[in-house]
Amino acid sequence: MKIYDVENFPNPLRIRIALAEKNATTEVEFIAVDLLNGEHRTEAFLAKNPLAGVPVLELDDGTFISECTAITEYIDAAFTGPSLMGISAKERAVINMMQKRAESMVLDAVATYFHHATDGLGPELETYQNIAWGEKQGEKARTNLNYFNDILAKSRFVAGDNFSIADITLYAGLVFAGFANIALPSHLTHLLAWQKAVAARPSVAGL
Amino acid sequence: MKIYDVENFPNPLRIRIALAEKNATTEVEFIAVDLLNGEHRTEAFLAKNPLAGVPVLELDDGTFISECTAITEYIDAAFTGPSLMGISAKERAVINMMQKRAESMVLDAVATYFHHATDGLGPELETYQNIAWGEKQGEKARTNLNYFNDILAKSRFVAGDNFSIADITLYAGLVFAGFANIALPSHLTHLLAWQKAVAARPSVAGL
Ligand SMILES: N[C@@H](CCC(=O)N[C@@H](CS)C(=O)NCC(=O)O)C(=O)O
Ligand SMILES: N[C@@H](CCC(=O)N[C@@H](CS)C(=O)NCC(=O)O)C(=O)O
Repeated sequence: MKIYDVENFPNPLRIRIALAEKNATTEVEFIAVDLLNGEHRTEAFLAKNPLAGVPVLELDDGTFISECTAITEYIDAAFTGPSLMGISAKERAVINMMQKRAESMVLDAVATYFHHATDGLGPELETYQNIAWGEKQGEKARTNLNYFNDILAKSRFVAGDNFSIADITLYAGLVFAGFANIALPSHLTHLLAWQKAVAARPSVAGL
Repeated sequence: MKIYDVENFPNPLRIRIALAEKNATTEVEFIAVDLLNGEHRTEAFLAKNPLAGVPVLELDDGTFISECTAITEYIDAAFTGPSLMGISAKERAVINMMQKRAESMVLDAVATYFHHATDGLGPELETYQNIAWGEKQGEKARTNLNYFNDILAKSRFVAGDNFSIADITLYAGLVFAGFANIALPSHLTHLLAWQKAVAARPSVAGL
């Protein structure tokens, strides 16, 4: 198994945490993609992922899997250890829903802000920007932090009692927010306490 | 089990097809949401889904599940019949990836075009529009149809040999495209043949 990625970027981080949670990091060969020089937009890389993004998982039979949810689905089923996607029908549905909310309400909204309303990855890579849309998504992300603070006031993790892919996505969203200079307001105490607890997990602290 | 939705809208359609594929339509009570009059933005509905969208599934224990992927995950696990999400780790990962591609490359792109670059649901509901962003997403959706035509030149279904949630999402995307006056070019013969075959499935033709 190979993972094509860029260390420390928010989406690759999701998969590195998932692998570490399953104790499977050493099962994978990491291949660095020179994203800042546009390697992810070459023909060779587009054959791996037509959406020109990292991470991408390559299975031993040559199948390429992109999208963090899909890669995590694979990792969760292929390795033992506590489930990241849930076991029962209800658990799986709640985790799927909360993961999607963390993605659309925070991680993807912050990414759109970063790529459209800031210099993003620089003029060579940010070839189309819509500043108004970027600003709007940035505002949305900031507002949505309140939603997750409320969730975490009542629940230990984002999708209930157990750590899951929904926590990984929200955590990566906050990492991306930091990178994009979106500050976490200090009154969001439940969100901040949860963030501290996730950062202290061996899977995250050990990266 | 209850489903809150609006008949004939693209996202609700995804769940109605999923239920019909699992022969489970009669297990569910459908509750109509008066979306065109903004019922989905009332406090009462936001308590079911803070993202103010349909469909929403209510389980018998009162849990609300929104997001079509999460609802389909539940339906797929809760009822017998051919799997819509895949069985093996690899199958599940490929289906997850292709579902996500159908969503981001077509369905969601068409929705953004519709809500931002056309009258959408009318001035009462479309309170913020970014026309340039909407146009851009419309172009993206049109271009991305070629990608799925190429996939369907080589594969019977979107994620391989079996009908899955990825087909449901792409099919709903094309329904939405029709609704938004985005025409399917006649040279996309593989996509058109697949669309015809999906439309003829009992789960779709019987709706
Ligand atoms: N939805 C994708 C997102 C992947 C993504 O956007 N990755 C970023 C790195 S964090 C990227 O490759 N960006 C390339 C670019 O912006 O050109 C996933 O879940 O993997
Ligand atoms: N990602 C959501 C999308 C739900 C959605 O946007 N549904 C549309 C109906 S097709 C809606 O409720 N729109 C309300 C609005 O635009 O105000 C899902 O998978 O269910």
